[in-house]
Amino acid sequence: MKLTRAKRPSSAFTTVDFDRTGRQIGHIMFPHSPNDDAWGVTRVPVAVVANGKGPTVIMEGGNHGDEYEGPIVIGELARDLDPAELQGRLILMPSNNIHAVMGAQRTSTVDGLNFNRTFPGDPLGTITQQISAYMTDHIFPMGDAFLDLHSGGSSLDFIPSAAIEPTDDPALAARNFAAARAFDAPCTVIIGNLGDPRTATATACRAGLVTVGSELGGGGRVNAAALSVARRGVRNVLAHFGVIASSKASSINADRPIYELKGTPAYVYATAEGIFEPFHELGSEVRAGQAAGLIHRVWEPSIVPEQLSYAADGIVYARRQPGRVRPGNCCLAVATPQ
Amino acid sequence: MKLTRAKRPSSAFTTVDFDRTGRQIGHIMFPHSPNDDAWGVTRVPVAVVANGKGPTVIMEGGNHGDEYEGPIVIGELARDLDPAELQGRLILMPSNNIHAVMGAQRTSTVDGLNFNRTFPGDPLGTITQQISAYMTDHIFPMGDAFLDLHSGGSSLDFIPSAAIEPTDDPALAARNFAAARAFDAPCTVIIGNLGDPRTATATACRAGLVTVGSELGGGGRVNAAALSVARRGVRNVLAHFGVIASSKASSINADRPIYELKGTPAYVYATAEGIFEPFHELGSEVRAGQAAGLIHRVWEPSIVPEQLSYAADGIVYARRQPGRVRPGNCCLAVATPQ
Amino acid sequence: MKLTRAKRPSSAFTTVDFDRTGRQIGHIMFPHSPNDDAWGVTRVPVAVVANGKGPTVIMEGGNHGDEYEGPIVIGELARDLDPAELQGRLILMPSNNIHAVMGAQRTSTVDGLNFNRTFPGDPLGTITQQISAYMTDHIFPMGDAFLDLHSGGSSLDFIPSAAIEPTDDPALAARNFAAARAFDAPCTVIIGNLGDPRTATATACRAGLVTVGSELGGGGRVNAAALSVARRGVRNVLAHFGVIASSKASSINADRPIYELKGTPAYVYATAEGIFEPFHELGSEVRAGQAAGLIHRVWEPSIVPEQLSYAADGIVYARRQPGRVRPGNCCLAVATPQ
Amino acid sequence: MKLTRAKRPSSAFTTVDFDRTGRQIGHIMFPHSPNDDAWGVTRVPVAVVANGKGPTVIMEGGNHGDEYEGPIVIGELARDLDPAELQGRLILMPSNNIHAVMGAQRTSTVDGLNFNRTFPGDPLGTITQQISAYMTDHIFPMGDAFLDLHSGGSSLDFIPSAAIEPTDDPALAARNFAAARAFDAPCTVIIGNLGDPRTATATACRAGLVTVGSELGGGGRVNAAALSVARRGVRNVLAHFGVIASSKASSINADRPIYELKGTPAYVYATAEGIFEPFHELGSEVRAGQAAGLIHRVWEPSIVPEQLSYAADGIVYARRQPGRVRPGNCCLAVATPQ
Amino acid sequence: MKLTRAKRPSSAFTTVDFDRTGRQIGHIMFPHSPNDDAWGVTRVPVAVVANGKGPTVIMEGGNHGDEYEGPIVIGELARDLDPAELQGRLILMPSNNIHAVMGAQRTSTVDGLNFNRTFPGDPLGTITQQISAYMTDHIFPMGDAFLDLHSGGSSLDFIPSAAIEPTDDPALAARNFAAARAFDAPCTVIIGNLGDPRTATATACRAGLVTVGSELGGGGRVNAAALSVARRGVRNVLAHFGVIASSKASSINADRPIYELKGTPAYVYATAEGIFEPFHELGSEVRAGQAAGLIHRVWEPSIVPEQLSYAADGIVYARRQPGRVRPGNCCLAVATPQ
Amino acid sequence: MKLTRAKRPSSAFTTVDFDRTGRQIGHIMFPHSPNDDAWGVTRVPVAVVANGKGPTVIMEGGNHGDEYEGPIVIGELARDLDPAELQGRLILMPSNNIHAVMGAQRTSTVDGLNFNRTFPGDPLGTITQQISAYMTDHIFPMGDAFLDLHSGGSSLDFIPSAAIEPTDDPALAARNFAAARAFDAPCTVIIGNLGDPRTATATACRAGLVTVGSELGGGGRVNAAALSVARRGVRNVLAHFGVIASSKASSINADRPIYELKGTPAYVYATAEGIFEPFHELGSEVRAGQAAGLIHRVWEPSIVPEQLSYAADGIVYARRQPGRVRPGNCCLAVATPQ
Repeated sequence: MKLTRAKRPSSAFTTVDFDRTGRQIGHIMFPHSPNDDAWGVTRVPVAVVANGKGPTVIMEGGNHGDEYEGPIVIGELARDLDPAELQGRLILMPSNNIHAVMGAQRTSTVDGLNFNRTFPGDPLGTITQQISAYMTDHIFPMGDAFLDLHSGGSSLDFIPSAAIEPTDDPALAARNFAAARAFDAPCTVIIGNLGDPRTATATACRAGLVTVGSELGGGGRVNAAALSVARRGVRNVLAHFGVIASSKASSINADRPIYELKGTPAYVYATAEGIFEPFHELGSEVRAGQAAGLIHRVWEPSIVPEQLSYAADGIVYARRQPGRVRPGNCCLAVATPQ
Repeated sequence: MKLTRAKRPSSAFTTVDFDRTGRQIGHIMFPHSPNDDAWGVTRVPVAVVANGKGPTVIMEGGNHGDEYEGPIVIGELARDLDPAELQGRLILMPSNNIHAVMGAQRTSTVDGLNFNRTFPGDPLGTITQQISAYMTDHIFPMGDAFLDLHSGGSSLDFIPSAAIEPTDDPALAARNFAAARAFDAPCTVIIGNLGDPRTATATACRAGLVTVGSELGGGGRVNAAALSVARRGVRNVLAHFGVIASSKASSINADRPIYELKGTPAYVYATAEGIFEPFHELGSEVRAGQAAGLIHRVWEPSIVPEQLSYAADGIVYARRQPGRVRPGNCCLAVATPQ
Repeated sequence: MKLTRAKRPSSAFTTVDFDRTGRQIGHIMFPHSPNDDAWGVTRVPVAVVANGKGPTVIMEGGNHGDEYEGPIVIGELARDLDPAELQGRLILMPSNNIHAVMGAQRTSTVDGLNFNRTFPGDPLGTITQQISAYMTDHIFPMGDAFLDLHSGGSSLDFIPSAAIEPTDDPALAARNFAAARAFDAPCTVIIGNLGDPRTATATACRAGLVTVGSELGGGGRVNAAALSVARRGVRNVLAHFGVIASSKASSINADRPIYELKGTPAYVYATAEGIFEPFHELGSEVRAGQAAGLIHRVWEPSIVPEQLSYAADGIVYARRQPGRVRPGNCCLAVATPQ
Repeated sequence: MKLTRAKRPSSAFTTVDFDRTGRQIGHIMFPHSPNDDAWGVTRVPVAVVANGKGPTVIMEGGNHGDEYEGPIVIGELARDLDPAELQGRLILMPSNNIHAVMGAQRTSTVDGLNFNRTFPGDPLGTITQQISAYMTDHIFPMGDAFLDLHSGGSSLDFIPSAAIEPTDDPALAARNFAAARAFDAPCTVIIGNLGDPRTATATACRAGLVTVGSELGGGGRVNAAALSVARRGVRNVLAHFGVIASSKASSINADRPIYELKGTPAYVYATAEGIFEPFHELGSEVRAGQAAGLIHRVWEPSIVPEQLSYAADGIVYARRQPGRVRPGNCCLAVATPQ
Repeated sequence: MKLTRAKRPSSAFTTVDFDRTGRQIGHIMFPHSPNDDAWGVTRVPVAVVANGKGPTVIMEGGNHGDEYEGPIVIGELARDLDPAELQGRLILMPSNNIHAVMGAQRTSTVDGLNFNRTFPGDPLGTITQQISAYMTDHIFPMGDAFLDLHSGGSSLDFIPSAAIEPTDDPALAARNFAAARAFDAPCTVIIGNLGDPRTATATACRAGLVTVGSELGGGGRVNAAALSVARRGVRNVLAHFGVIASSKASSINADRPIYELKGTPAYVYATAEGIFEPFHELGSEVRAGQAAGLIHRVWEPSIVPEQLSYAADGIVYARRQPGRVRPGNCCLAVATPQ
Repeated sequence: MKLTRAKRPSSAFTTVDFDRTGRQIGHIMFPHSPNDDAWGVTRVPVAVVANGKGPTVIMEGGNHGDEYEGPIVIGELARDLDPAELQGRLILMPSNNIHAVMGAQRTSTVDGLNFNRTFPGDPLGTITQQISAYMTDHIFPMGDAFLDLHSGGSSLDFIPSAAIEPTDDPALAARNFAAARAFDAPCTVIIGNLGDPRTATATACRAGLVTVGSELGGGGRVNAAALSVARRGVRNVLAHFGVIASSKASSINADRPIYELKGTPAYVYATAEGIFEPFHELGSEVRAGQAAGLIHRVWEPSIVPEQLSYAADGIVYARRQPGRVRPGNCCLAVATPQ
């Protein structure tokens, strides 16, 4: 059952027709009136590729502007998918937080907001809030399923993985689980974001869409291995939903492991300013209490480095990229086998 | 033969005595009068560890502020080396461009200068120019050898390597070559910086010091493998110079390959704005003309990516870390077997 | 019929008495506690000129801080109008978004907000939101009519014109129309701002005030011709409302043309980064589909310029001032004869 | 009677247990996802020192980040108080607007907000709003009394004083009055903040806590005399509440004067840009109409300085620290004997 | 007679061959090592179009980054000129201060320098200084003539005009004069820049090149009339030098007026902060002592505007674009008939 | 004997005539071509008050932009001195680093330079370098004596004092000493700036002028007591030089103490980040080794404060104003009795 939500008035308009068959690449236009452009617009790219009867699948990239595998792979689908091979509709949004994508940073360069902390948005708010409101009010109601392709961005590096969005609805939970498995990443992880309701995936779930996330590569760069996982994964998921023929997808490996980030002990936070030296590579098995790394005060060679420890058992799933840390920075995340 | 250079007047002063035996950790103090500190100083860390007779070896880290293996390893030497095991003197400068190191960026946060493009410096110039002048006028004249530990910083990732500084003096060239081999990194590369005379290593060579560089890890983070190379390398080089006993160093592998960055064709530069997808991992063998990667305009999914190609034969020695590129950014560097 | 709205609590206070006869020039004071002024105020200039019985007319300038004809002309009225020649009351607010006016930019330098996207405001919000709340809660309820003098600002250049604010109330619409005609600008344009409810004029209409706008000059400079239009226009409108004798106003030309900005096709948006070369002067007649200009990539001379086209028939009413454009910038607006 | 308020959902968590006896020093952790730290936290320091039965007293410092006496004295209590000498519980929060404290400025360096204008906060808002929401929803409900230690910060200098928070509840008003007198500062001042409801102290009063404020020193520096007043004052207040034995406090002087800031005439605001020369020292007796100082336009020596005057009778209670003023800056505040 | 100047060592390299016939469009590459690109380059566009025997003409645009007619017209020549119609060589540099051009501002976004105040440059200095050094050492020595196309930029608006560069060499002065007349702009003006030796044109003259300047349009936008003047002018000048056939140029009007900016009285400077209202359009005849405009303090309506006056007789040749002025801003320039 | 120095070419010009009798207030105009003002000027205020025969005395204020007593007092002289009471000439420059003065900060807001570290300047350099070159080449050669009025600025607070500039010329040293004594400040201090040759006073000495400095008040504010010292001091010094009658000056106290800042041990530098709590007031007698204050890490209440100590005997002459310190900040300066 889908929840319905009244559409709030918005002055956004589009250059594509969501009800048309074939391929269209255009923009959602948000009137935007900053210092240097009184009557201009912010243009959020959108492609619609549709044919025949079938579900509507929404794909998002660029929710954060420094996560590149999603925008690349969704852009390739927009250019390369043959509408004739579809049964259904794809709404492809490769670069949703467009100002962040242009600036190659996590948050919008215009209003400083983390798009994934703004849902359900506000059509009379800042540009980022307007985009999330448009997703909530206009895009999600058209969809049956939602793929949200994230990567580690400039501050984290991940084991390429599919992400399962938790939900209180058991039927939806099962469908989310199955769809995440269909992505067929090297591992699949339940990521609850400590319960934050302001994300795109949480909002899609509340709207009743089958929802799949991912965490691909990171380190602020394009990870070739993660890109390959993503290219296969999106086709696998489209086949899973019946939008493309399963012959267009690869075979899925049923033995991939499943992990969970189990609450706050999953995270290792910096306790001092300095340069973080990690002790383990991604994928290493570690235990709570084990030494995780050192923070070196390189500007004061007389100071002995400070040691960090893990607080959970599992594998090293995520690792901070920039060496420089301030207290509170997430240095490592441990995923525990489910 | 060492060139001598008159010391220019400087108002810097030190809290260590370069002529004292034992271990001292202190600072070189440069009077600095910015908006928030009329009569303050910039403090550049320096340690002196000395014993008996023997050469003076100068070690520099933090020439660029986002290259971490050098500062970490030099800081460890400053804290951990037992003066009793030395014959000679170490002048350890782990964080020379101190404002850049505090800010974890390549260039100084105070005057914006790239320290390694300021030599021979100016004692009446900006802080960065004053530090390079102090190196030129006061530090290098005390030294017999100079190790300058660089890494890839936040914009490049390297194969951990020792670097040979070219010089027109054949005797010095041979000594530089032998010392770089003693570092025993996985590979050794002749890096001429396109002839730039403004670097620390070029200046040390002009002053007659045996000079060894390195390029360790990168990506703006601490590379555990590179750190291990550096920890071994600095002790090997000290043993090579006879400052520590060779029993304190590891055995050196004589078969390590030697490469050279052969002029401007070694570099692959971005030709458009976008996100760079590299096609090869570090160490891959490539040929001139071969496709090297794509630049994706992720904010305009209708635009087909632009392809980059290599211009030299060799191995992928360096690769850009941030995915976002502007025209002119160095995406890749190819090292050619010598 | 005027809608009434409860006044929300505000800590603002004034140095003028809105109920006093004669001329007063003072400030509305908004307590403001930024980094450098714990217990200070933001001072919004206001003048009250009142005499006898008659309507209250509110005049606003400086809604955007880079539109100068309004502030100049309203300031002249504040200094020069003889109270004895009035029947009624003028509330003159020449520089409402005062931080934007001081900074000569469209939006506030303090909170970055576009004042004309903040109505009805928030008395507990940021300074710009507090000013719009004060307008909504305290100023508009005192008024019978509202003149809001805009210009093109630094990003657009306009044909000097009066603007008609659309409203669903037919009686008010007729009065708005008549008052705009009384301004007697070279042309009069219906400008609906794509339905945005957050403007000062939309809010004044909702409060039941007869509302007139203007778009005078632009290009970030003072336009002498537009200034002359404005100086005549404000007196004409005051005479229209009976606040000054019609003998103090100029004769009105009944044949002035009326145009409308008809939805999103009225706007020509940039499709690429570059330098915009327009093909037509303000006032030129153009047709949908006609070439409108070129975007030159001047930093890459090998790239052929990209062409823009009009999407509506009419006259070139507005033109972008800065040559530099990014995708989405409004390059031109076409007004269609009504 | 305490008002109860439903706790809004928050993703914050703590490293201390508020129900444990003894001394704990830790943090409240607010998940925070900016550009350089996708999965990190903002850490707000908190200490809990508890023993036996008795009231819970909450102490706040660092509400503004450039007011230092509070953080210093609360930090000393956290380290030095012997839990064995308590009857009750102290919740010590020395640096509540932690990003402002790290940046040594009034407002947060992360979201620019003045923490003391954000209550009751928003657990889904920006970091500063989340901290004030946590105070409102989680901390104040645990407390019986609240001490909020302010100083003049970088823009004002004060006579060291206790501050009485006004409230409409006569019983609470009497308890606030008695507690402020117990602080035993050189003077005690009723400070209503022109009725602003968004402060920590106004919120604590609404939650029914006995509330005491202070204004200590200022000028952006540590005032040794004010620090001494604060060290005595906090112990006196703890003794007043029975948390420590009165033998641990100093004797209280019953003759200390009481003043009030009586509305907007208490403040002298700058009327021009320039350098402010004050005519009187803190504590001087002044009268309404008396000359208060000059504003010198030092960059135009031909311009005669502009004179400011007082608008109330009383003593000079606060004085602006930076000489440079813009119109609206608070130059002086006059406290009137009650 | 040309002065020769030793080429200073530079690490710049080119992707074009200046000695090759035909059309090439490429870059001069300046190694540049900022925070985000350790081994990258700054790419300055250059085109070489050459055929047969004849003089070498150098054309510069983008000396200032907000002057657009030059870059547009030089880019058109680079793409459109048929090498077969030439006798000689064109070195076309449309965007010389490339970082300023990308940023659409007068000065470099990288080092803040005004390129036209950096000659003769420094090959070991900042990027802007390196570019001017390359012009001085490598480009000018190849040339016989130099056209430097300027416009008013974002702060001034000009009567489209050719500019005569003064020189002490009477033979060169005559050739400069003839070449400027050949440009055939609506007027021609002798502009001495108050004797500043640091400009490109002064440097070209010192190197013995026939030198022509221009001041086209301005106001930070593309001026269609000025563009048309420039398109004709560059072909006229090429024909004047014999590089293209005179049949490819337009007929030249011998009656165009010649003016001169006669020292400091030519300029009207702002004397106060405020908004400048000019009294005359470009081209108006004015006399010394005549009122030139007003400066309105729009943020303080009680203040009477301040009047400016002309100090020379002539025509209004240049006018400030932004309304906002600070003391010292050039509001107007008067050109006096020669 | 005065050293002569060739005047380097400068494009600066003045609106005053240095050779005219009477009072003139005007500007030295430096052509300045930043982004928003292609043909504007930077205006440095200057007043000339002259009558009869007598020495030329140059007075400088605003060498640093956040030191206010000098600009105020020199402005008063410019407006108030009656030329008829002079024998000689005053060149009054109240705000020499004018951009710093407008910005109320130590260094220029335009080029970031500390004016007092730029002498002898460069007439082709940045604006600050041009101003110091103008002082060196044009102003100092006109003078017999130079008074340079400094204060503590925003980072230091001083005991109001006259400053003696050291010089190797014994005759000049004696005249400097006598002139500083004539200033009659509460104390007089020999301040050598650790030998820095780049100051205005060092340059004036090298040019042979009798030179007097001062350090008045500080803390970024106007110190009424220091202002009073300065008002008396400048007249005393003018009388000392015979420019005004000694009857116009106050009697001088011969018993004022003389101190010296004796090298680097005079300064107490911060050794950690935190908030500095000083232990002594200005003027306190202290001894080397004595505890000087604490640095509190207020953001980590678990960390014990770090203690600083004095390194010289004497009185506390200067104290840091902002509580927040970073390592290297000057916290205190000790002046030793001569």
